[in-house]
Amino acid sequence: MSEAAARTRRGRSGGGAARRAERTAVTIDTAPTITRNIPNMELLNEEALEIIEANAETVLEEIGVNFVNNPGALQRWRDAGADVQGERVHIPRGLARKLCATAPSTFTQHARNPAKNVEIGGKNLVLAPVYGPPFVRDLDGGRRYATMEDFRNFVKLGHMSKWVQHSGGTVCEPTDLPVNKRHFDMLRAHMTLTDKPFMGSVTEPSRAQDCVDMCGILFGEDFVQQNTVMTSLININSPLTFDDVMMGALEVYAANNQACIISPFIVGGAMAPVSVVGTLTQVLAEVLAGIAYSQLVRPGAPVIFGAFVTSIDMNSGAPTFGTPEASQILYGAGQLARRLGLPFRSGGSLCGSKLPDAQAAYETANTLNAALLGGVNFMLHACGWLEGGLVSSFEKFVLDADQLGTLHKMAAGVAYDENAQAMDAIREVGPGGHYLGCAHTQANFKQAFWRTEVLDYKPYETWDEEGGRNSQILASERVTKLLNSYQAPQLDPGIAEALAGYVANRKAEMPDAFM
Amino acid sequence: MSEAAARTRRGRSGGGAARRAERTAVTIDTAPTITRNIPNMELLNEEALEIIEANAETVLEEIGVNFVNNPGALQRWRDAGADVQGERVHIPRGLARKLCATAPSTFTQHARNPAKNVEIGGKNLVLAPVYGPPFVRDLDGGRRYATMEDFRNFVKLGHMSKWVQHSGGTVCEPTDLPVNKRHFDMLRAHMTLTDKPFMGSVTEPSRAQDCVDMCGILFGEDFVQQNTVMTSLININSPLTFDDVMMGALEVYAANNQACIISPFIVGGAMAPVSVVGTLTQVLAEVLAGIAYSQLVRPGAPVIFGAFVTSIDMNSGAPTFGTPEASQILYGAGQLARRLGLPFRSGGSLCGSKLPDAQAAYETANTLNAALLGGVNFMLHACGWLEGGLVSSFEKFVLDADQLGTLHKMAAGVAYDENAQAMDAIREVGPGGHYLGCAHTQANFKQAFWRTEVLDYKPYETWDEEGGRNSQILASERVTKLLNSYQAPQLDPGIAEALAGYVANRKAEMPDAFM
Repeated sequence: MSEAAARTRRGRSGGGAARRAERTAVTIDTAPTITRNIPNMELLNEEALEIIEANAETVLEEIGVNFVNNPGALQRWRDAGADVQGERVHIPRGLARKLCATAPSTFTQHARNPAKNVEIGGKNLVLAPVYGPPFVRDLDGGRRYATMEDFRNFVKLGHMSKWVQHSGGTVCEPTDLPVNKRHFDMLRAHMTLTDKPFMGSVTEPSRAQDCVDMCGILFGEDFVQQNTVMTSLININSPLTFDDVMMGALEVYAANNQACIISPFIVGGAMAPVSVVGTLTQVLAEVLAGIAYSQLVRPGAPVIFGAFVTSIDMNSGAPTFGTPEASQILYGAGQLARRLGLPFRSGGSLCGSKLPDAQAAYETANTLNAALLGGVNFMLHACGWLEGGLVSSFEKFVLDADQLGTLHKMAAGVAYDENAQAMDAIREVGPGGHYLGCAHTQANFKQAFWRTEVLDYKPYETWDEEGGRNSQILASERVTKLLNSYQAPQLDPGIAEALAGYVANRKAEMPDAFM
Repeated sequence: MSEAAARTRRGRSGGGAARRAERTAVTIDTAPTITRNIPNMELLNEEALEIIEANAETVLEEIGVNFVNNPGALQRWRDAGADVQGERVHIPRGLARKLCATAPSTFTQHARNPAKNVEIGGKNLVLAPVYGPPFVRDLDGGRRYATMEDFRNFVKLGHMSKWVQHSGGTVCEPTDLPVNKRHFDMLRAHMTLTDKPFMGSVTEPSRAQDCVDMCGILFGEDFVQQNTVMTSLININSPLTFDDVMMGALEVYAANNQACIISPFIVGGAMAPVSVVGTLTQVLAEVLAGIAYSQLVRPGAPVIFGAFVTSIDMNSGAPTFGTPEASQILYGAGQLARRLGLPFRSGGSLCGSKLPDAQAAYETANTLNAALLGGVNFMLHACGWLEGGLVSSFEKFVLDADQLGTLHKMAAGVAYDENAQAMDAIREVGPGGHYLGCAHTQANFKQAFWRTEVLDYKPYETWDEEGGRNSQILASERVTKLLNSYQAPQLDPGIAEALAGYVANRKAEMPDAFM
């Protein structure tokens, strides 16, 4: 039994009050990591993939990448055999790829509830909520700056979402808290309000270290050194630039055996060429350099090949989502990641719409479908993203989270055993009959089909009499229902106290900063 | 030059008024048939497909299919070697498949404007609008019974939709016209308001013959006998029943070399087993029997392997759309059709939602994505479907039609020539730069990315100042704009008069019937 499991057991065995709470708790059902039993969609052919791979090596060698304000990184690269000119690192052909070989093809991220550990890589798909928006929107309150209360509510919704295995990270920016202290409250919320795995802070190397330290309290320090308990998001400043803040956070996490998503953040046409293959070339070069660097810090550190790539609307300059070019890049990046044998991050509930309306859903569904078939292993932003990532939407969170169930069902593939063949049913019913009451239907109907928990399937007349509610209204009602029935998962009171004490002490050590 | 082409030229060369009209006409751009340059998604493995094929033969031989009220059909089957018991036709293993071999793997459906002919089959995808709803809905008028004016407006919208190559058939039911006469007006609308290809009536064999006769006027009788100018929808009464009305229409069309979509209409769990493979088995058995019958009527008659299959919500009994099971069946049916070497019909803008809201768009996008990757050749209901097919929605028509552009772009695949590789751009911009002004972007940005014509990409503040319009409102404005700028394509005045005269005479011959 792992230490985390032991802690959980201890937590659950503590005192009569805890036992009573456990008896009355709402059971929160979390579906396991999706394991695909279906082929991936291989959109690009072998020739195209080889050209991209060769061109990416040319980019790394000839053009190189910048590691900014980071003499330590430049020295690591020099020691590894790169040609460093100022802050520009020219990486000889093949070196980055060779360094990437020590990164694991799959890894386990531990949750404090071991039943909720996730496997990242291979044929698995782990789903995590929206990350990063400074605004929130809901039906009653409209669009407004996000607060810590919003943050906690999103964590609660994630905890209660069956198809979402991961609590994510910055589900929204709690703008009411000081910039230099909010990571304490965010991480504590993920640690206490849910027992799913979570992400750490990347906004300063010192904050990454705070997250490692807090995990030491939650999981035990030895456990953290021996296991991965956080997966954090390290964006590359595309094109081809690795800044000191993100690299500093990467260095902390890699040194502590914690996972990083090394992810170009690209609006194609602005931060990468206005072509799919040109963009994929740059994505591959950037990821190769970033993952190679993680392995220079600590060989074997767990990483994910990230690709957050979309296209620009050349008329307005706005980033666009759910477009065919974004899907093509996702499919191609997935192929490149699999050829490297690395876990792949892309996709999400991406949309440009200002409202959780038809536009948002078309764009989101286009992205979710591509992510499923394109072999994504870790999907950040899987629910709740709105307005190009500026807004976390409560209604869209539950609408998207519901749709994620369709990915689980699709990924399971198609059974064709004797029961699935249903020949007895076809014989029993015969021409002109119906299957509603036949034995096969009675035996199978409960599990046969995915079913929504928020969309409307009622007859028109009933729907009309009940007010003709659209998806946003139905979703708003579900948000209220979920938050009203939320119950926190058990946590050892000693650990909860230690976390609270740590956060209070650390906050007291520093003045508030709002910039 | 085909006769239809000659007629079009004659139409365009007639008189000064026609020339003036041509000069001032709005140019309506229609994208050609989509030809896929990407792989299909092969969801089911070889073993599962072989089991389904073997089981379908068992169904045909052992259980058989009913041809109802159709002594001629029973005689044809007897002559072909089937074992006919009453109305039940038991088809020996392999016979139906052998009969299907004379059906063409691809065929051309001619339009009166030869530039708008479509190729159906192979790697092609032809898109046609919603078919069949008795109601329409728009933002201003709400939900109401459809009229002939609505019908004409939908045909106009289809004519003006760049990504829609086919005018379809019953875009809505014109309930203000007598049941026994409305096919005249519907067909005449397709013939005069657009120059795209269209579908014929199937509600009575005599009405199918009327459609053949009207095509004789439009295209010339010899041309119709030698070419396919209609593709019509023949539904099978699942399970395993072929009624005399639909088969009568099929007989007329096949005898006249006109194409039929032989299509089971299945809500899985009600008209087929509550499992994907069981449903696929029944679909294959039904299509094999139906297409075999078309080839008994006229070997070589063009047909399409149809599969309109969705799942039932076992709680409410409602048909559901955009579900994983519907996608699985679509993918599997596509594989079965390709193994038979037949054109495949499935997919569409299918949804259960009552409104063109997020639910409608999730469900629709799930279906459109599966249809693209599942190898659909002919997509009926590609735009405008709402509320489980009870409603044709004006706003959803233009929203869906816009999304269809993403299918065109996805199907084109990914270019990887030197321009697409964009290495000069990556060199020019370098680390930390941006691509907006670089030479490669300037040379390529206009064609690089698909762009919506209806969704919102504006900055938040602009969008907010302009009233914070959701997708439905934006779509409503586009409907008005399109209908206000509609201009009918040129048609030889002699043909137009002949069609009007034919319709007037035929209507005068019969009393109105409203049932």
